Amino acid sequence: MYMETKTPQVNGTGHTDYGNNTVNGLKQEEMIEESSVQRLSSEHDLVLKTFRLLIADLCQQFGGGHPGYAEYWRLREVKADFDRGAIGMAAIGTALWKYVMRYAPHTPDYFNRDRFVLSNGYKAMTFDQLKSYHSDRVDALCPGHPEIEHEGIEVTTGPLGQGVANAVGLAMATKNLQATYNRPDFDVVSNHTWCMIGDACLQEGVALEAISFGGHLKLNNLTIIYDNNQITCDGSVDLTNTEDVNAKMRACGWDVIDIEDGCFDVEGIVDALNKARASTEKPTFINVRTIIGIGSAVAGDAVAHGAAFGAADVANMKKMYGFNAEEHFVISEQVRKFFEDIPAKGEQLVQTWDKKVREYEARYPELGADFRRRIEGRLPENWKDLVPSSFPEKPTATRASSGLVFNPIAQQCNNFMVGTADLSPSVNMIWKGKVDFQHPDLKTTCGITGNYSGRYIHYGVREHAMCAISNGLAAFAPNTFVPITSSFFMFYLYAAPAVRMGALQHLQVIHAATHDSIGMGEDGPTHQPIELANLYRAMPNLLYIRPGDSEETAGAWIAAIEAKHTPTIISTSRHVLPQLAQTRRDGVAKGAYVLEEVDDADVTLIGVGAELSFAVEVAKELRGRDIKARVISFPCWRLFEAQPLEYKRHVLRKHRIPSVVIEPYAPNGWERYASAAICVKRFGHSLPGKAAYRYFGFEAPVMTSKVEEYLGKIRADDILRQEFVEL
Amino acid sequence: MYMETKTPQVNGTGHTDYGNNTVNGLKQEEMIEESSVQRLSSEHDLVLKTFRLLIADLCQQFGGGHPGYAEYWRLREVKADFDRGAIGMAAIGTALWKYVMRYAPHTPDYFNRDRFVLSNGYKAMTFDQLKSYHSDRVDALCPGHPEIEHEGIEVTTGPLGQGVANAVGLAMATKNLQATYNRPDFDVVSNHTWCMIGDACLQEGVALEAISFGGHLKLNNLTIIYDNNQITCDGSVDLTNTEDVNAKMRACGWDVIDIEDGCFDVEGIVDALNKARASTEKPTFINVRTIIGIGSAVAGDAVAHGAAFGAADVANMKKMYGFNAEEHFVISEQVRKFFEDIPAKGEQLVQTWDKKVREYEARYPELGADFRRRIEGRLPENWKDLVPSSFPEKPTATRASSGLVFNPIAQQCNNFMVGTADLSPSVNMIWKGKVDFQHPDLKTTCGITGNYSGRYIHYGVREHAMCAISNGLAAFAPNTFVPITSSFFMFYLYAAPAVRMGALQHLQVIHAATHDSIGMGEDGPTHQPIELANLYRAMPNLLYIRPGDSEETAGAWIAAIEAKHTPTIISTSRHVLPQLAQTRRDGVAKGAYVLEEVDDADVTLIGVGAELSFAVEVAKELRGRDIKARVISFPCWRLFEAQPLEYKRHVLRKHRIPSVVIEPYAPNGWERYASAAICVKRFGHSLPGKAAYRYFGFEAPVMTSKVEEYLGKIRADDILRQEFVEL
Repeated sequence: MYMETKTPQVNGTGHTDYGNNTVNGLKQEEMIEESSVQRLSSEHDLVLKTFRLLIADLCQQFGGGHPGYAEYWRLREVKADFDRGAIGMAAIGTALWKYVMRYAPHTPDYFNRDRFVLSNGYKAMTFDQLKSYHSDRVDALCPGHPEIEHEGIEVTTGPLGQGVANAVGLAMATKNLQATYNRPDFDVVSNHTWCMIGDACLQEGVALEAISFGGHLKLNNLTIIYDNNQITCDGSVDLTNTEDVNAKMRACGWDVIDIEDGCFDVEGIVDALNKARASTEKPTFINVRTIIGIGSAVAGDAVAHGAAFGAADVANMKKMYGFNAEEHFVISEQVRKFFEDIPAKGEQLVQTWDKKVREYEARYPELGADFRRRIEGRLPENWKDLVPSSFPEKPTATRASSGLVFNPIAQQCNNFMVGTADLSPSVNMIWKGKVDFQHPDLKTTCGITGNYSGRYIHYGVREHAMCAISNGLAAFAPNTFVPITSSFFMFYLYAAPAVRMGALQHLQVIHAATHDSIGMGEDGPTHQPIELANLYRAMPNLLYIRPGDSEETAGAWIAAIEAKHTPTIISTSRHVLPQLAQTRRDGVAKGAYVLEEVDDADVTLIGVGAELSFAVEVAKELRGRDIKARVISFPCWRLFEAQPLEYKRHVLRKHRIPSVVIEPYAPNGWERYASAAICVKRFGHSLPGKAAYRYFGFEAPVMTSKVEEYLGKIRADDILRQEFVEL
Repeated sequence: MYMETKTPQVNGTGHTDYGNNTVNGLKQEEMIEESSVQRLSSEHDLVLKTFRLLIADLCQQFGGGHPGYAEYWRLREVKADFDRGAIGMAAIGTALWKYVMRYAPHTPDYFNRDRFVLSNGYKAMTFDQLKSYHSDRVDALCPGHPEIEHEGIEVTTGPLGQGVANAVGLAMATKNLQATYNRPDFDVVSNHTWCMIGDACLQEGVALEAISFGGHLKLNNLTIIYDNNQITCDGSVDLTNTEDVNAKMRACGWDVIDIEDGCFDVEGIVDALNKARASTEKPTFINVRTIIGIGSAVAGDAVAHGAAFGAADVANMKKMYGFNAEEHFVISEQVRKFFEDIPAKGEQLVQTWDKKVREYEARYPELGADFRRRIEGRLPENWKDLVPSSFPEKPTATRASSGLVFNPIAQQCNNFMVGTADLSPSVNMIWKGKVDFQHPDLKTTCGITGNYSGRYIHYGVREHAMCAISNGLAAFAPNTFVPITSSFFMFYLYAAPAVRMGALQHLQVIHAATHDSIGMGEDGPTHQPIELANLYRAMPNLLYIRPGDSEETAGAWIAAIEAKHTPTIISTSRHVLPQLAQTRRDGVAKGAYVLEEVDDADVTLIGVGAELSFAVEVAKELRGRDIKARVISFPCWRLFEAQPLEYKRHVLRKHRIPSVVIEPYAPNGWERYASAAICVKRFGHSLPGKAAYRYFGFEAPVMTSKVEEYLGKIRADDILRQEFVEL
């Protein structure tokens, strides 16, 4: 957050004693810190004042008028954010970025850097970029919320609570790498994850899930710093939340440290942060009391917290602080100097680490090569050879096909971390010899144990956190980890905000979603995903793929694994499906392809996923009624849209003959590819899969008659031919 | 859960002393309970054994074979559910339904009944309906999960965690009615809400949000009964959760009662339940240790918990229990008698209450009439007169229009409970003189207070719980409450599972979603809802309405309030919009209507919500280029789909001329109504609203040229005319 640094959110400490051989290298550092911090406390005072006035000046930029009702509220919101965020957090920031964080501003992708997540993301203001904040420059470096595209930003937060789960994922990544690669005297991975949160993060469910899970895993390399100013948009936090947060965190397995004066006590904060890094048992929650708008006339005034700073107020602050009220955006030479050494110290960290890794590679050539591959985000070269070239002909549920395709890959390629939200028996993602990711000391009632080198994650019934944590794993470094999540497709509605954030951040996360379609049966309408595919087919930068048999499931996994900057949902069936002779994995790569061609066809049938075989059956029955039907398989819209126009027209032939899609989902969007749909537009029904299909008319003779009738109708009604019809 | 009762999930106690004048009428009842419970403990033994064997027999029905891989797993799942649910919970059920719950099986809609929510919904087996469970009868009374359509089911649960939040809403409904209508000696509302949960519910974020909020509100009329068997699908709970749940609940403001022997100690459970009902300060969490599959060979065996009961195992259980191993589904006369008195006692409760309400109506005629209106789920007759007949002509954000339209209604009609997820300053849902719904003793730092008669709810930053709690409020009795939620539209992705459950249950909940479209601006892509409308337009039984100005906002609210069995999302803008002369509220009721007609038009422009005025502008510019454009306003797909075909063709004219929709969302689904779209298919961009529009080409001259160019292209390319084109 300071001008001197290239990547203000990820500043550093400059500890050059990092390569020592205590595990965390802390004893010596703490002593150094303590003395230097105390010596500097008057300097801190100046730094904090400078910082707060910079923010106040910035707020003033917005204070020039009230151009309309909506804008007025907007200004209030913006100012409240600054107020809350930046001014209150000045001391925390100074402690972190000057003294504690290990990173290199000029090498922002330094692999072993400490990770910092700003979960209360609306405070994403970075000082370098102040002047572009909320500007209408398209290339503004300073968006309203931090975005991963900008150098030095670890994860895009924004929707509250996500950052906490991302931080858990980042800390898990470190643990897994340490357990896999570190050797005595070679702690090639030793970074800590810091996560700053606000009051709201402690209310959001996704954060509460992640906190519970992080405590369970005893992630002692994770620290949450709670900017406890007790203010939210509606007023003081006690309007909505009166729980004992420290007791709650302790109950969840976290150590708690209190900081009473979080606005000024840089020394106390540094001490707490160092203690947190040294924790051997648990993650740490630092509860830092801050005062909103400290130094201004509205300081600590909850009701007024949304109000703008007035010009007079800012001038008063400046006078009170001994600054010139007429000058703006002032940074004294002394303050500049205070931060000046950070980049050089950071580069020293990088060099020390580079040297260590080279020695490590010499000492452990095989392991070193593997570590290098992971740093570079590559899979083992042979991963594609592990995909079976053919499959048993017997009817197979595509959720089982998923296991056949992917489990050998997961077994061999340690980039993959495979998780499930308590549905191991259903999702088939367990490979032979899998080891659970767990704290090594965990003793469970059921006898299952694990350690941090394990790559199978029991997330518990926490779908949302599972996906948000997976984003954190993926964000550790590009493709070093490729996280897999698994659950019923319907439960990806619980996880949707995290799936979205993965897509937005171009993170490769693969979601193995089983029990799609009404064919999943007995669990009924609450579990039958009638409308969910509409969300994921519309979501930018996400592949939603419904494979129709084992061969197509192979195609789906290959497409997902090759999409290095795009998450994928592979949507599979609970129930067994016939294996079709004509399906092709390379067809899946194109999104849609012709399964059965007929040159002078009367109609195109579009089959999708679990219902692909229905299209084949109906085509056959139609032939018996003298109607020529061609069949196309259409597993993925987005992959298809990426094809050349010519290919698309070749597959669809929509302009020449009518086409009917068969899918028991809400049909919205199929209008682009089909002229009619056999679909479901109400919620499902509690029936076994086959009976549910029957109930909704998904039986070959019924569907065949519907298509026949439709073809008759459009011959008689020219307008209808041009409309989309639900059969 | 017992055969004798008509509505097995809502059984009763038969306390005839209910009309006494202590507030909860508990002292005397407790004494009666204690003696009768002790007398019956040997009878309980028989009841529990009978019940467990019935479940074991049921499991056996499924044990006849392994018809394929998927089915095998399915059977394991089904059996695990039974195992967990029914057998472990027998004693809890007996305690609740025989001794504690106040309800009337033959009058399942008895207004003042205790509410029971089965949050661990997979245990929805009801004994009456055993034989239809998982059958393929379309009218099966026994779906895989409880569904509200079935008599005596309070809410449909299923997706885990929802039930906890529903229960919080049900308890809030009671509190609000009590504070509004109860008078000294007339406790016309006095029911308690019981919520049974499993291990998973304590992991789901939505439940954790609701638990925190329920504790804050000090809902002493709410009891969570935790069926603590420490088993989930993947194994023992300690595989994923090792927190101290009692300490966590206490930190959240709940009283905690432990029951060590939840499998047999009916007396202890009854005592705990009565204590919970008598609580004067806090909601109660009863932690009941149960043993999975108690009595069977796999009892308490976590690893084996998914395994089926074998025939031999069931026979052994029967022998051990002194039953005939050859007989199935046996209920002795003694057990029948044990439950026999419940319906009569229930009817007595109903009669006592009816008499009390009649006396109340006589004593307080005005209040009594109001109470009757609420019982009958009616709004005040004049509600529609409160909608302004016209609006100021100045540009207005539709989020502000929402306030203009709805706040006077909210003020006058006490059916409405209006909540916000910490966005009061942004959503404009505060009416003059609103009182907050809060515990009356709450003292906040910001000085805002309230009481239980208040109807404005600060939910905190808990979007998901807000919507799930609102479902509970709505489910209390049909339309007695009409809950309103409010937040940014994008955050309704956090709440989507609860919005869905409202739609599925036909609950009237109105979601005031502001900051839709990329026009919301600075908060950037994380807050710009590119693909979210696709979900809600596809979701069955939900109205997603985007009004274009104040007049259309009036239409949206009227449609939402008139949709008694359907939830609505009213999706409004953050930024100001011009007021259009041609907009009509009755046009909104039809989903789409012609805004500007031109008989020999070259093109139809479809305007939507915040971008409606763009369509008008472009039409005007096109006229300047000698292209005749008609304009239709299209605020709601589902309302339009309900119109007659003739009306739809009249509005669309899609078969005659090309049509272009203007909406900065993913266009999927517009293909049905338009032949081309000016749309956005990537994530948004961090820019102020106007600049974001400009960035994505939503400026009149740019759009006009796009339309002109498109019309030229399709004149030259016949195939293109039949395809959907993104401009």
